[in-house]
Amino acid sequence: MPRFKLVLEYAGTRYSGWQIQKNARTVQGELRRVVSEVTKKSDFEIYGSGRTDAGVHALGQVAHLDVETRMAPEPLRLAVNDLLPADIHVLSLARADPRFHARHDAVSRSYLYQISRRRTAFGKPYVWWIKDELSLPRMRAAARVFRGMNDFRSFTDQKIEDGSTKVLLQEVAVVESGALILIRIVGSHFLWKMVRRVVGVLAEVGRGTMGETEVKGLLTRKARTPAPLTAPPSGLFLERVFYEEGPAEFPIVPLLGVTRA
Amino acid sequence: MPRFKLVLEYAGTRYSGWQIQKNARTVQGELRRVVSEVTKKSDFEIYGSGRTDAGVHALGQVAHLDVETRMAPEPLRLAVNDLLPADIHVLSLARADPRFHARHDAVSRSYLYQISRRRTAFGKPYVWWIKDELSLPRMRAAARVFRGMNDFRSFTDQKIEDGSTKVLLQEVAVVESGALILIRIVGSHFLWKMVRRVVGVLAEVGRGTMGETEVKGLLTRKARTPAPLTAPPSGLFLERVFYEEGPAEFPIVPLLGVTRA
Repeated sequence: MPRFKLVLEYAGTRYSGWQIQKNARTVQGELRRVVSEVTKKSDFEIYGSGRTDAGVHALGQVAHLDVETRMAPEPLRLAVNDLLPADIHVLSLARADPRFHARHDAVSRSYLYQISRRRTAFGKPYVWWIKDELSLPRMRAAARVFRGMNDFRSFTDQKIEDGSTKVLLQEVAVVESGALILIRIVGSHFLWKMVRRVVGVLAEVGRGTMGETEVKGLLTRKARTPAPLTAPPSGLFLERVFYEEGPAEFPIVPLLGVTRA
Repeated sequence: MPRFKLVLEYAGTRYSGWQIQKNARTVQGELRRVVSEVTKKSDFEIYGSGRTDAGVHALGQVAHLDVETRMAPEPLRLAVNDLLPADIHVLSLARADPRFHARHDAVSRSYLYQISRRRTAFGKPYVWWIKDELSLPRMRAAARVFRGMNDFRSFTDQKIEDGSTKVLLQEVAVVESGALILIRIVGSHFLWKMVRRVVGVLAEVGRGTMGETEVKGLLTRKARTPAPLTAPPSGLFLERVFYEEGPAEFPIVPLLGVTRA
């Protein structure tokens, strides 16, 4: 059976996340329904690189699909996009090595988080609007604390065996783009809610209600204290999934140009 | 009674346009309802710089408001924004000269139109997606034809006295931004549907189904033939309203960064 690699973008607002669930609208569920309709098959599987939570978006989610079809990749992609809801879009679809696995082969993932410093008529589903003044220098200093190998036990609700809450973050960048503050986090893997809690802590630091020492404490102590704040899903995008070591540098670009006024 | 000048942005998708109507949700209607709630007044007026049609957006609509209130401008703005729906936002609100009139005093208006060369999970409400290949050089050449003073009789359904269909366009620019083609049109005033029909003609030219000569024909003959195509409202933004001659040059920036892949 041929294997295909898909890259997808989606607006997560209307979905209960990526993963198929009974009685809930999910991105994987919509994709499965449409692929089945196009190929007239029902015995096939779609594997994502990982889950995204309800309301979280993707600019470049990766999945693989095993389905018996005589359609060439590009006609298949166009036929699938024709039937998908407007807020899910297959960017690319190509034949893949039968040993390629969207989740197991991923070596790192990049997330983008959009904080807006102002209310915006267009941005609500895609930003976290923070009214308080945020200090970029303080946020950048705290971002450095997260880089490298750290124990993110305080940043997840996931029940995990001891020791496996250690995660290597290659990049935690904070950049300004008009009224937006963009946070990019690149890591080998992520624990449940981890990105949104890192962003929550960076926001607290930006506000001045948390200091760098407290951030270090959350990461180094065998702290039972959880991170104080989970950023809302609206601002979060799964940006890219990398299948080779050493991801190329790429520009940090906002989805919405909330740059006016 | 104090007069205020307001600058607003709104996503027009959910609204039957700017202008108040009975039994329809409009931007002016929402604004009126909220100002009334905040100021506890009902005897006041809000005048826009002009109407926008159903589904058309604004990045900088201007209005003036006469209302008896002891509130200072900034607290008034914040209170109004707190009660407005998420897709309408007052960017600025300031005391204005009692002789200032949002519509009469406007000397020119700028519209932005977003064409997308690809389907996008985030862009549907904010672009016109055109599948056909479009030639930028041909569109740019045709854009030049529209500049200056021309008779736009073929570009409107509006019933107007003879001669008054002449409109001076200061700028018709076509620029590329990733997968988007951005068209900016600046003019003294606009006839009903005119911007969307100019964009419709530019798209036909880009596709190669219309030539520059036919465009000139639509503008110079006392043609009864209407422009062949009206672009959908989703891609259209009222960008700025100018109250002084010689608008400053400002960058043409997309609302959505549909630049990936």
